[in-house]
Amino acid sequence: MTYCVGLLLDAGIVLLSDTRTNAGLDNIATYRKMFTFANDGERVVAIMTAGSLSVTQTTLARLTEAAEDQDADESRSILKAPSMLKVAELVGQTLSDVTAEVSGKMDRMRQAASASMIVAGQRRGGPMRLFLIYPEGNFIEATSDTPYLQIGEHKYGKPILDRVITPGTPLADAEKAVLLSMDSTLRSNLSVGMPLDLAVIEADALRITRQRRIEASDEGFARMSRAWSDALRDAFQKIDPV
Amino acid sequence: MTYCVGLLLDAGIVLLSDTRTNAGLDNIATYRKMFTFANDGERVVAIMTAGSLSVTQTTLARLTEAAEDQDADESRSILKAPSMLKVAELVGQTLSDVTAEVSGKMDRMRQAASASMIVAGQRRGGPMRLFLIYPEGNFIEATSDTPYLQIGEHKYGKPILDRVITPGTPLADAEKAVLLSMDSTLRSNLSVGMPLDLAVIEADALRITRQRRIEASDEGFARMSRAWSDALRDAFQKIDPV
Repeated sequence: MTYCVGLLLDAGIVLLSDTRTNAGLDNIATYRKMFTFANDGERVVAIMTAGSLSVTQTTLARLTEAAEDQDADESRSILKAPSMLKVAELVGQTLSDVTAEVSGKMDRMRQAASASMIVAGQRRGGPMRLFLIYPEGNFIEATSDTPYLQIGEHKYGKPILDRVITPGTPLADAEKAVLLSMDSTLRSNLSVGMPLDLAVIEADALRITRQRRIEASDEGFARMSRAWSDALRDAFQKIDPV
Repeated sequence: MTYCVGLLLDAGIVLLSDTRTNAGLDNIATYRKMFTFANDGERVVAIMTAGSLSVTQTTLARLTEAAEDQDADESRSILKAPSMLKVAELVGQTLSDVTAEVSGKMDRMRQAASASMIVAGQRRGGPMRLFLIYPEGNFIEATSDTPYLQIGEHKYGKPILDRVITPGTPLADAEKAVLLSMDSTLRSNLSVGMPLDLAVIEADALRITRQRRIEASDEGFARMSRAWSDALRDAFQKIDPV
């Protein structure tokens, strides 16, 4: 499985993904699930993926090929599409096409393959937007009522987001929140694993403001994880029984 | 859906269940999911249920009928079976039989019905035991390495259990932990709902030591829920960023 989370805040977009893939429990590997496309000062797009690796890789390969093709027009390139809505539609259409092709092969084996994606970004003159693309290619969008979207193993890490994230959350707190949401998921579910990819897109920056990979050996993350465990245990001790 | 959790601790067994059932999102009702059987001083058995209501009700009705039947022998009555292992086998066999019968009817409509259960208790002269019965009737047992079992919507409430529960956890802390585990689940998943049923079986008491229903209007639970939210937010603010 996978855990990816995206926040759409007044101050910007915060994205976090894990990197574990598995074909059964005995075949585990590390694959990047976060992909960024930027034409700095003009537009920035980030995509996170969950689901069958054959579907997500082919989808991303096609999107990347079109984005790098100077001759691709706005109907094919996510770096040229005239709005973030069109970017989401383009990603959705590509995902839907690839899923249908792969599923055609899988059907013969009575198996299925699917994937979902989070698409985030901003183009010059437009608002920041954050979409969740379903395997069928349709999508939903984050709003101020629900300023976050998740794909993959979303349940373990949802309570912390429900409690602390609002559109007004500052970026530093938002980074902490997604990392702690991931920490809960890592702890409770083996199918989600380090390293992590974190990206921040500040509002109107029109580029990836900050991007880093957090390795399993990262001392800062380990310290935060321990501090959160200790803080939870302290908080737990202080709560009066019912 | 449902959320039920059981803890097997040195000091005793702690059980908590919600009461929400739904047939679709537009047909929600309240049904008890925790059932207790006791012959005080001799044995105590508690069962919690998750899954298709038609399966869980029929299974419990058969188990109850046999337990109340003075003529039922140890092969049919969970109040007479010679060990907690035999109790788990009897519940598993009944669940398996009922599931097969109901599934036979459902198959014709291309639908399926299944359920899982948690069985906990102690008989005089034996240890406390806690089992999770799968829809097929087989089961697993809690151990000191993993002293808790969950059925239903288990993911939201797992992180707090993973962090605070060990076999040595005192009963008062254990009650808090299951209530906070439920609180996280209630907050993040509409298919789990108040009121709650809580039961405690102290070690070697051989009876239900304490049992209470916590209504949606319960001020103690509301206060704990608010205090936990506040404590989480405070703890969150105190964590240093990575």
